[in-house]
Amino acid sequence: MKEMYTRPVDGKNVQIHASFFKNLMNLAADKIIPYQWKALNDEVPGAEPSYCIRNFKAAAGEIRAPHGGFVFQDSDLAKWIEAASYMLMWREDEETERNIDFCVDLIEKAQLEDGYLDTYYILNGIDKRWTNLRDNHELYCAGHMLEAAVAYYKATGKRKLLDVMIRFVKHIQSRFGYEEGKMRGYPGHEEIELALVKLYEETGDQEHLKLAKYFIDERGQSPLFFDEECKREGRGVGWVRSIYEGGAYYQSHKPVREQTEAKGHAVRACYLYSGMADVARETEDESLKNACDTLYKNITRRQMYITGQIGQSSFGEAFSFDYDLPNDLVYGETCASIALMFFAHRMLRMSPKGEYGDLMDKLIYNGTISGMNLEGDKFFYVNPLESWPERNQKNQQFAHVKSERQKWFGCACCPPNLARLICSLPGYVYHKKGDTVLFALYTSSKADIPLENGNAAFTVKTGYPWDGKVIITMEKAFSGMTLALRLPAWVKTYTLNINGKYAKTRMADGYLYIQNELNAGDEIVFDMDMPVMVIRANPKVRSASGKIAFVRGPVVYCMEEADNGSDLNTISVPANQSVEYAFEPSLLNGVGTITAQGVREMNVGWDENELYADHVPEKAPCTVKFVPYYAWNNRGAGEMTVWVREEK
Amino acid sequence: MKEMYTRPVDGKNVQIHASFFKNLMNLAADKIIPYQWKALNDEVPGAEPSYCIRNFKAAAGEIRAPHGGFVFQDSDLAKWIEAASYMLMWREDEETERNIDFCVDLIEKAQLEDGYLDTYYILNGIDKRWTNLRDNHELYCAGHMLEAAVAYYKATGKRKLLDVMIRFVKHIQSRFGYEEGKMRGYPGHEEIELALVKLYEETGDQEHLKLAKYFIDERGQSPLFFDEECKREGRGVGWVRSIYEGGAYYQSHKPVREQTEAKGHAVRACYLYSGMADVARETEDESLKNACDTLYKNITRRQMYITGQIGQSSFGEAFSFDYDLPNDLVYGETCASIALMFFAHRMLRMSPKGEYGDLMDKLIYNGTISGMNLEGDKFFYVNPLESWPERNQKNQQFAHVKSERQKWFGCACCPPNLARLICSLPGYVYHKKGDTVLFALYTSSKADIPLENGNAAFTVKTGYPWDGKVIITMEKAFSGMTLALRLPAWVKTYTLNINGKYAKTRMADGYLYIQNELNAGDEIVFDMDMPVMVIRANPKVRSASGKIAFVRGPVVYCMEEADNGSDLNTISVPANQSVEYAFEPSLLNGVGTITAQGVREMNVGWDENELYADHVPEKAPCTVKFVPYYAWNNRGAGEMTVWVREEK
Repeated sequence: MKEMYTRPVDGKNVQIHASFFKNLMNLAADKIIPYQWKALNDEVPGAEPSYCIRNFKAAAGEIRAPHGGFVFQDSDLAKWIEAASYMLMWREDEETERNIDFCVDLIEKAQLEDGYLDTYYILNGIDKRWTNLRDNHELYCAGHMLEAAVAYYKATGKRKLLDVMIRFVKHIQSRFGYEEGKMRGYPGHEEIELALVKLYEETGDQEHLKLAKYFIDERGQSPLFFDEECKREGRGVGWVRSIYEGGAYYQSHKPVREQTEAKGHAVRACYLYSGMADVARETEDESLKNACDTLYKNITRRQMYITGQIGQSSFGEAFSFDYDLPNDLVYGETCASIALMFFAHRMLRMSPKGEYGDLMDKLIYNGTISGMNLEGDKFFYVNPLESWPERNQKNQQFAHVKSERQKWFGCACCPPNLARLICSLPGYVYHKKGDTVLFALYTSSKADIPLENGNAAFTVKTGYPWDGKVIITMEKAFSGMTLALRLPAWVKTYTLNINGKYAKTRMADGYLYIQNELNAGDEIVFDMDMPVMVIRANPKVRSASGKIAFVRGPVVYCMEEADNGSDLNTISVPANQSVEYAFEPSLLNGVGTITAQGVREMNVGWDENELYADHVPEKAPCTVKFVPYYAWNNRGAGEMTVWVREEK
Repeated sequence: MKEMYTRPVDGKNVQIHASFFKNLMNLAADKIIPYQWKALNDEVPGAEPSYCIRNFKAAAGEIRAPHGGFVFQDSDLAKWIEAASYMLMWREDEETERNIDFCVDLIEKAQLEDGYLDTYYILNGIDKRWTNLRDNHELYCAGHMLEAAVAYYKATGKRKLLDVMIRFVKHIQSRFGYEEGKMRGYPGHEEIELALVKLYEETGDQEHLKLAKYFIDERGQSPLFFDEECKREGRGVGWVRSIYEGGAYYQSHKPVREQTEAKGHAVRACYLYSGMADVARETEDESLKNACDTLYKNITRRQMYITGQIGQSSFGEAFSFDYDLPNDLVYGETCASIALMFFAHRMLRMSPKGEYGDLMDKLIYNGTISGMNLEGDKFFYVNPLESWPERNQKNQQFAHVKSERQKWFGCACCPPNLARLICSLPGYVYHKKGDTVLFALYTSSKADIPLENGNAAFTVKTGYPWDGKVIITMEKAFSGMTLALRLPAWVKTYTLNINGKYAKTRMADGYLYIQNELNAGDEIVFDMDMPVMVIRANPKVRSASGKIAFVRGPVVYCMEEADNGSDLNTISVPANQSVEYAFEPSLLNGVGTITAQGVREMNVGWDENELYADHVPEKAPCTVKFVPYYAWNNRGAGEMTVWVREEK
């Protein structure tokens, strides 16, 4: 296996220049992180209090207060620390660093003598800890704080939080495992698995990897731990457990290596699969890698929206089943898209295949950032592909679909998750393998990358995702070094020249490996044609039958009421036409738009009192405008649809 | 107002001959009524016990047993007595009559000294009676038992149950009303209003009408009684009240005369509107009639499926809003279709308009009897217009949609409701007004109808709904007498001859009034062309955008997997073609079928691993067969859809 591995190039080696990414990163740094800090401190007027800092203060004995918020409230602070740490890798910010240090001191003070750390149980009765692994998120919170600790250590070299968390991990090791006297449990919400592998990558301590592997291996073994736990504690199993057979909601219906379909809560699932991929990679476990391959394929070939969202059902924020992809009822949680990004990134680490980068591209430009408005201060939890505000409001089946992004959520998982994804984008751009740099994503940037036999340094200039031209100027190169450029699956034609001359390449698994010897000063111009594409869904996808979607490059487009008036359902668009594409710098902070000719059914010809009739509605030609899906709902509440009826 | 009124011709004056109706009636008499009697006595092996008879025995002091089943369990017995009474009007059945008498004795014995009668409170603590009008159905059960009492009295002349119920009504009068010391309440589930008017029509006692009018008038007055009741009793208002603003779930959000949109629980709503129409008619209340008109129009022009179902949302089994008519998520409860039938029938009593008969036609041949299988022993509560069994099973949003009819329900409202509708069909066929007989429905029958100045008698022969030819042979006629034939809105061409000669007619409000003098021995041949029609929905109905439905006469057709294979979504059908219609006597107990040429998208050309792609699926011509919607799901679980994509 190992000969296929790639390593992500550390974000510290990559500087992102003015670009789509940089805009996102600045938004996260300027808006989301400071806003979230206020939120964590209960200082946002009108917003539900977070209680996060208060909980830690109380647990540290600094104040007297009951635990506030959800049982997983600690994770909000952890995600904020992690996001802010990534930010500190590319932006100096003394105030934020001071705030993190303040938190770290609190966290250390809150930690119990034996290493345990979770404010919910510290404040609500420590005797009850580890009695409800299924629902009460202690290991989940531990995982997030571990990720935060590793990120902060990498950003600043400060070890205090890392040491706190290593102590907590020791405590967890003393409680969980195969050995006599330990619990054979695992978390109801996966997360700690991937976090432990991050810790292992930092510490090299095999015990950290072993614990991750234990949680992975034990999951779904018979008898089901969660059911035993319910019995032991005298709790009913509850509706979620009963609806999702065998504990599929928690991905515990089978041992993980036997799982072939993505099931249950989508965020849980993709955190688990990410952890599985991490453990498979680090332990060179073929059967675990195969399970990851199978699950990845099930998601991306059967259960994923065109925009990258996953989780079709609001009942349990969960996967439903193959080809069931309702555009309007969808859950499509922002966090689930982010979790799928984590999974794709880890798949790429195991095999340098273009498709993983393609998916990361799809997620970044569509289903993740659709969760946030252009100002970075309002968020969607649910990301529909079709929205009819009146229905969202008046038909309770759609109550989970909001017509407008919300300021903040009581369950504030999505905004900090977005912040940590965006702030860590530099770490997703390049991978390396031997003396090869693989381009996973395209963004204007400058990188200096230590390879096996030397350093490769270059600057990249591109208008991606609006423009498929990528100009790479080599600054350092050495003999035997090469670059591999991801050729997205949507590219039909491209040119690749070095210093104006045809470059020799080898194509493998969606990557173009440059065969020419590269030298400092070389200018590589990779130009991918980026026409507007008319996309259809597999005929088994009922919700897209007879419909088309417009996609250009990685960006999926949608029709909005703001451009096209209401009753979007009355519009149909012929697939065979030359549509117009334009970049509009003053629209929606600068977006590409697509203008097509369409047809609109008119209400004329229909008596308004006719609900059903045997005549054909009159139609009129109309111009239809499409904007990027991620940018929808930035001009007030209104109808939106990604899929549009094909006019034949 | 009164000059417009028609009176339904009593079912006792009408004999239904071999016909679609007669088949239904025999099914109800042979299967449903005996089966339900067993169910009421907890004698159906494997079915949830009903506890109905046991509850009455316990309340009567004959046995000791706790109350079983729902708080409205008494209504199941009432509906059975009512249905069986209607049956006794056209079929002698000594055993059933004995069973009813047995029940009546029990019911009388269970009644309290002060007239009160509800086994739930008699068995659970009488001090709590009338403390939860909103949720606990005492007035609803009273209404059903009243309807049963009137029906049994009309069928047999036996007064005992009627007298019991008149005593109960006296008790209710002593508790509810405007007078000092009485409660200003009304039922959470309407039903007693229309029942009281039935009682009034039998007794002529103005107090009975007055009580009905009180319940209608008081509903929705401010402050909201139900909220006051919750406060007084220290109960929370609960989720239904909070979801449906102002108590709209119970149609109590406004005084009824101010209501303009059908809202809330669909059965409740149509029972209320039926009661409103009854009171409007009997009190000649224009404002109440106007409210009925407005609500009727809102339902039929905005919120009704093509098959007559109502109630778009499973949350509260409720109306949602105008033009929101999802085919797959629909609730469309069988009982709601029946309730709409009641409402239409009452609208017809106030104005002799063809459209009310058109709707009754639509309901009888589609959305009501779809609730029952051809054998009469399995039932749908929810009637979808599109069914995908895998989704019903695997996506919790669709958990209310069953892929197959069920044996019996714990909440067994639909089967007995169907039985009482079907057994009373003879009473829906003819109306009269002065010396005119109005044909509301067409079925082979024989009638002898007392009119103002004489009797009209005739036999009718027709193959309706498969054939639009209706042959009426006059047996008794008198000068000045006439017949008015409903001309369904779907009829484009017809002939109407008397003894082979062109008949002179006057058209008014969807009725053809015959102008010729009619004599005994005359043969009237009314021949309505019944081509297959291609129907579209108003462009505002999103769920039918780009789709067509096939309808012939009153019968709506659907595609089933049994005839067309799976993946029905891949089939599209051109609207402009000559389809074939045939009556197939050996299919589904004899149904008309439609065969059309269509096109099927093939999975060939798609890599099974492609979920989205920029190529066009291959298509192949195919033959598509449609069967009547009501007969679907009689050949195993399978996909079904009423609306099919139009191929252009």
